[in-house]
Amino acid sequence: MSSSCDNADCLAWAARDESGFLSPYKFSRRALGSDDVSIRITHCGVCYADLIWARNGHGDSKYPLVPGHEIVGIVKEVGSNVRRFKIGDHIGVGTYVNSCRDCEYCNDGDEVYCDKGIAFTFNNVDVDGTITKGGYSSYIVVHDRYCFSIPEEYPLALAAPLLCAGITVYAPMVRHKMNQPGKSLGVIGLGGLGHMAVKFGKAFGLNVTVFSTSLSKKEESLSLLGADRFVLSSDQEQMKALDKSFDFIIDTASGDHPFDPYMALLKTAGVLVLVGFPSEVKFNPASINLGMKTVSGSIAGGTKVTQEMLDFCAAHKVYPKIELIPIEYANEALERLIKRDVKYRFVIDIENSLK
Amino acid sequence: MSSSCDNADCLAWAARDESGFLSPYKFSRRALGSDDVSIRITHCGVCYADLIWARNGHGDSKYPLVPGHEIVGIVKEVGSNVRRFKIGDHIGVGTYVNSCRDCEYCNDGDEVYCDKGIAFTFNNVDVDGTITKGGYSSYIVVHDRYCFSIPEEYPLALAAPLLCAGITVYAPMVRHKMNQPGKSLGVIGLGGLGHMAVKFGKAFGLNVTVFSTSLSKKEESLSLLGADRFVLSSDQEQMKALDKSFDFIIDTASGDHPFDPYMALLKTAGVLVLVGFPSEVKFNPASINLGMKTVSGSIAGGTKVTQEMLDFCAAHKVYPKIELIPIEYANEALERLIKRDVKYRFVIDIENSLK
Repeated sequence: MSSSCDNADCLAWAARDESGFLSPYKFSRRALGSDDVSIRITHCGVCYADLIWARNGHGDSKYPLVPGHEIVGIVKEVGSNVRRFKIGDHIGVGTYVNSCRDCEYCNDGDEVYCDKGIAFTFNNVDVDGTITKGGYSSYIVVHDRYCFSIPEEYPLALAAPLLCAGITVYAPMVRHKMNQPGKSLGVIGLGGLGHMAVKFGKAFGLNVTVFSTSLSKKEESLSLLGADRFVLSSDQEQMKALDKSFDFIIDTASGDHPFDPYMALLKTAGVLVLVGFPSEVKFNPASINLGMKTVSGSIAGGTKVTQEMLDFCAAHKVYPKIELIPIEYANEALERLIKRDVKYRFVIDIENSLK
Repeated sequence: MSSSCDNADCLAWAARDESGFLSPYKFSRRALGSDDVSIRITHCGVCYADLIWARNGHGDSKYPLVPGHEIVGIVKEVGSNVRRFKIGDHIGVGTYVNSCRDCEYCNDGDEVYCDKGIAFTFNNVDVDGTITKGGYSSYIVVHDRYCFSIPEEYPLALAAPLLCAGITVYAPMVRHKMNQPGKSLGVIGLGGLGHMAVKFGKAFGLNVTVFSTSLSKKEESLSLLGADRFVLSSDQEQMKALDKSFDFIIDTASGDHPFDPYMALLKTAGVLVLVGFPSEVKFNPASINLGMKTVSGSIAGGTKVTQEMLDFCAAHKVYPKIELIPIEYANEALERLIKRDVKYRFVIDIENSLK
């Protein structure tokens, strides 16, 4: 199937309806503007959001829908005003491709919280009025402000998951000053986000404990990811023994779970950062009042902290664990996401499989 | 009725059983230790906690129970080591009278969060093994660390509510940097705590909005307390118009209420401080994630911030609105608390009525 446009030169895989089933698709990208960068995509991470919108989970999906917002690649063309990038540079694009560039958040490099709202990398309205299409495609045209420099020595495939999973945990970790060696961090859930929280925690010099509902995660938490401790969250005795012992907790679980037992693990003035989307957050007020504890939310991160994270990962050799797949495997990958059967992020090998 | 102790020289009103009905009672205070201050009580505020424990609301009440933890008075005797106070000084005691004095929180003057737990001013175990008895009494003996200097010019009766209601809102306001002129503050609930939050908000130079379920609070919010705006929380149109317009919200309501509508009123990175105790806190994760918003709890405050607050109130002429009552009115006052029928704090005129 191809788009109606004659000059459709962008290869992609798209969902056509609420089944979310992906199949080959061709379309045209907008013409390169003076502030734009055209990127030959080499890899794209597979995020749970891809699945949600492919299947119209929020009722706002516009088909054909090309998912993907963990995009990395190589600069193939730059607009006349672009100074930050040149042809051949390694480059990344995350969850958004536009913002007002005029509000206090944009001015602070915190564009993800733009007063007027960001344009998401896919399924949103682009500057030319078309619908944005994501990274399950051969190339993309993006305003240079929303592009990130990927350090030359950093493997491109591994950079992809940093652009959503990575920044989603890195940004609140830095905002809440979790980068203090010797402090203690609990990580709830060990998926794409959770495994990055463990890795950043160790890179920051924290004592890291993984909380999971599945004992099968124990060995990998300790050996593969380098966590200091694993706790089965149903083990009430072990939970009790850790009462008031954590400075920070990052809750990456999107499945429903109780909050009071985790709030009890926080020290006085401790902070639980929520980055998952369970159906609700519910706790007893005493769980936060008695120890002046905090529950704080976060999504992704602005361009400033995203670039900082990429540089940090290169400097400290922080690498996501990925499963590299060809584009033909995308539908099966989405199915496996539902079963949480991935260690810990699928990355589509666009350059070698999308032809 | 009198205590079994022969040298019972402390007059008081006590609850004898779960009815919570208060009646005259005599008992002896512990002997003055070298670090203690003996205080002739002139006034004591009436807090909702008095009612809860008088009626065994938490199942741990020890009778006879003498309530009262908003105590002010005049120093009548000091121990040999006491340098901070001298006979005749105006002095206050709040919600706690002991702590370990050795943990990081005690060392920071944040004793209310003591690692080993504080001794509450009433219904807890005192240093001599007896049960602490509160301020509905003629005098009290307290370690000088847990006593506060009340500036000479500050009316004693008005100082009483500062020691629980006042500090409960002042401490988190300062901790969360709400003392920035020009920022916007929402106050949910207009009782003892809420009216102090309005007063502190105005003293800090904030733009203060009162949210209440009762339109009857409008006039008093604006005229009596000096709030800038009043919003009936059931008025969805007005609530909607205030979307993302508050830097801070202090939630003093202990009745159950939804949280999502208030989280929506916070700006990006806004903070809701919870100081009430509804039966649960429940919200959609998107309410905090999408704008990196924060819900943070708090109780009372340590000795450092409490003294700071008293000095601030004197310097800025911040005065609670009180209803001065004789001790004989205490039972009716507790009944009226249940109906929230008080503007805004009962203060018992101990010196003129407890004889």
